[in-house]
Amino acid sequence: MATFDLTKEYLNSIEEAISSENSAFLLSELDELFPADISSILYELEGAKAHQLFTLLDTEKGAEVLSNIESDDRKKFIKEQFTVEEIAKYVNLFDSDDAVDLLNEQPIEVREKVIALLEDREQARFILDLLHYPEDVAGGLMQKELVKVFTNQTVSECVEEIRLQAENVDKVYAVYVVDSEQKLKGIVSLKQIVLARKNTKIENILEDEIVFVDTTQSGDEVAQIMQKYDLEAIPVVNSLGRLLGVITIDDVIDFITEKAEEDIQVMAGITGEAEEDDSVWHLAKARIPWLVVGVFGSLLAASVIRQFEDTLARVSALAMFIPIMGSTGGNVGIQTSSLIVQSLAEKSGISIGLWERLSKVIRVALINGLVVGVVTGIYVYAIGEPELFWVVCTSLFAVVILASFMGTITPLILDKIGINPAMASGPFITTANDLIGIGTYFLIAYYLLSLN
Amino acid sequence: MATFDLTKEYLNSIEEAISSENSAFLLSELDELFPADISSILYELEGAKAHQLFTLLDTEKGAEVLSNIESDDRKKFIKEQFTVEEIAKYVNLFDSDDAVDLLNEQPIEVREKVIALLEDREQARFILDLLHYPEDVAGGLMQKELVKVFTNQTVSECVEEIRLQAENVDKVYAVYVVDSEQKLKGIVSLKQIVLARKNTKIENILEDEIVFVDTTQSGDEVAQIMQKYDLEAIPVVNSLGRLLGVITIDDVIDFITEKAEEDIQVMAGITGEAEEDDSVWHLAKARIPWLVVGVFGSLLAASVIRQFEDTLARVSALAMFIPIMGSTGGNVGIQTSSLIVQSLAEKSGISIGLWERLSKVIRVALINGLVVGVVTGIYVYAIGEPELFWVVCTSLFAVVILASFMGTITPLILDKIGINPAMASGPFITTANDLIGIGTYFLIAYYLLSLN
Repeated sequence: MATFDLTKEYLNSIEEAISSENSAFLLSELDELFPADISSILYELEGAKAHQLFTLLDTEKGAEVLSNIESDDRKKFIKEQFTVEEIAKYVNLFDSDDAVDLLNEQPIEVREKVIALLEDREQARFILDLLHYPEDVAGGLMQKELVKVFTNQTVSECVEEIRLQAENVDKVYAVYVVDSEQKLKGIVSLKQIVLARKNTKIENILEDEIVFVDTTQSGDEVAQIMQKYDLEAIPVVNSLGRLLGVITIDDVIDFITEKAEEDIQVMAGITGEAEEDDSVWHLAKARIPWLVVGVFGSLLAASVIRQFEDTLARVSALAMFIPIMGSTGGNVGIQTSSLIVQSLAEKSGISIGLWERLSKVIRVALINGLVVGVVTGIYVYAIGEPELFWVVCTSLFAVVILASFMGTITPLILDKIGINPAMASGPFITTANDLIGIGTYFLIAYYLLSLN
Repeated sequence: MATFDLTKEYLNSIEEAISSENSAFLLSELDELFPADISSILYELEGAKAHQLFTLLDTEKGAEVLSNIESDDRKKFIKEQFTVEEIAKYVNLFDSDDAVDLLNEQPIEVREKVIALLEDREQARFILDLLHYPEDVAGGLMQKELVKVFTNQTVSECVEEIRLQAENVDKVYAVYVVDSEQKLKGIVSLKQIVLARKNTKIENILEDEIVFVDTTQSGDEVAQIMQKYDLEAIPVVNSLGRLLGVITIDDVIDFITEKAEEDIQVMAGITGEAEEDDSVWHLAKARIPWLVVGVFGSLLAASVIRQFEDTLARVSALAMFIPIMGSTGGNVGIQTSSLIVQSLAEKSGISIGLWERLSKVIRVALINGLVVGVVTGIYVYAIGEPELFWVVCTSLFAVVILASFMGTITPLILDKIGINPAMASGPFITTANDLIGIGTYFLIAYYLLSLN
């Protein structure tokens, strides 16, 4: 089939069939659909109905569907509709990494009961192994299922091994070759196995120049490495070089897109995870923290303006240029910091020194400050406030330089102390630069205007 | 090897070896490195030196290295250092999709000469086919190289076909099955081929429930489909269902990360592509357009304030709250629009109607407006300006509601008219909401204060 688009009409027909217990219709529909599509239908259904539909699936397809549901939704669905026995039945068939993800969503007592109930004891052992690792490092992203052979085996023994593992390992990307100490020695691609003679020794066809990662490497690093070397799967070893598992590209893509979404939310000033279809209350809560920070920043700016009440009373036209100082500072700050954040994220190539960075940023700021200053200067003349010309132009120029400086050092500092530097492109920088912009403006106005 | 980190010391040793023409050292180093690592070294070297190092590679590895260099750098490198004959020598060995990417970077006369010079005439035909498609649709992302068999062939014939194609098709993800009219009938995984008996007919082991895309589907759609169904490769068909090519996951990952980077740049108000290591002039140019838009917006705000000069002269404390109206409007607008943009990008599930969207956004705005209003109200009392209490609180509340409304409809409108909706989370919304915020504030101030 091309692709499946869930329509309201289709959803209605499914809901009706569930209500009227028309299993024949539902079974034939479920048979036609891919697991990922069934997941997206369940997501739209009310809990009890979703469960009713779900139980019509055979255990294997059910497991695939369940492993496809997004974390938050699955947590709720399982909590409301599943017994521990039922969870264990499906988790038994999961890839070990997906099993750990599901179990990590559950309360600790559920987790332990499920593991105790697993029929496949190797699966239980895999899961217990994987539960040690934090979720966002290589150890937490890997699955234990893989096809492993020894250097001295032959191609036909290798085929036998694939046959034995076939049930456990859904997609075979490659065969991993280890020595008697379980140390990773190389990879043989399935293509090579298809093409090689049956009695060829594995050691004669293995590719020994391979890329692997350590269990402790970050998810970011894993993603960058897999992307750089165009890998569909990457083996994971421990500090002794022993093969422990493999990370597959689908998990890494999910990691990359979640990271990108998170960066955008951080830039937009949204805390925690939020999606449009969360509850009104959840959405409001996700937005309040940075809104309040912004309010405090602006109230500080109000206090600054209050300090210069006399200056403002003498030259009331000064008020007109309050907005341009704040917004230019904010815009320049975000532009600068987002470029720094991007270069921090790429990490490839030789890293740039702080002074080199700053000197470049300031040169860009000189050009942009000039452009912004000239446009605004023309306006100041045009509206007939020439006495403000130097105040506005100098301030604006200073604001562009200061905001560029802030936009450079903030992400670098955040990165150094282990905070996501994308935070620096969010409301924090706007608020800070608002304040700096307005302070600079009034200080310059105070001094320049008292000269006259 | 674990992974390669390019250090300044290593780079110096390479540069010295190039200057002193120490080929023995360079050849042994190049032999150890992966193509992607060689690409990152070339990137740091001055053009002529890079070319000197590059020509030490054998043609095959050279082609891999060249296909790994990023578009802009490669364009410059090739223009300065390569003859058309040299380009043709390497492009001859590229995957067809990568070949088209490289040729699309070249001036049309170079492109034509290279195609005419290609030794592999099938490659030339593939390239001419692919050049028809825009870069960002399925047709522009696919490669023509794939392993294809007919339904009535056997597994051993299939293995022969893989052997024949082995040189052309670097990574074999699966074998595609077509009928006599070249219509796609199914897929056989390499795992199945490894495990099946030699004389099994392909039609008996093919998986016929498969996901494919049409040449005209957008890169976004392809990325979403491959991610949803966890695919490493997806076949591309024409409107008659004939198999034309295949899109591999590595190209889709590059597409996803470029898209995410682009969205962040659009949000940050940077036009065109920019990276920290571009020239000062390039960086300044990429930032000027939105800075100037911001300046014009702020100057419009200045004109609005000018209209209310009398009100401001009477109650000079009004100036204090200009910043909070602008920045709160901006923050709320970005928060709202980024959630809408995110939900537009996901597209899965049933789409939400405009009224449902707006009603939810407004309910969130009521809560947030209340919080922001209360915090600010307390400040207004605390500094002893109670006559401004209603003006500031009402305005702020109105600004939150209006900014939420703008943040909802702007991305929806942009999406409808075919502009990247992420634009709505950029400086445009801040500028618009600055203006709306300040206008609302002075209008409300004017009316409420004249009542007294």
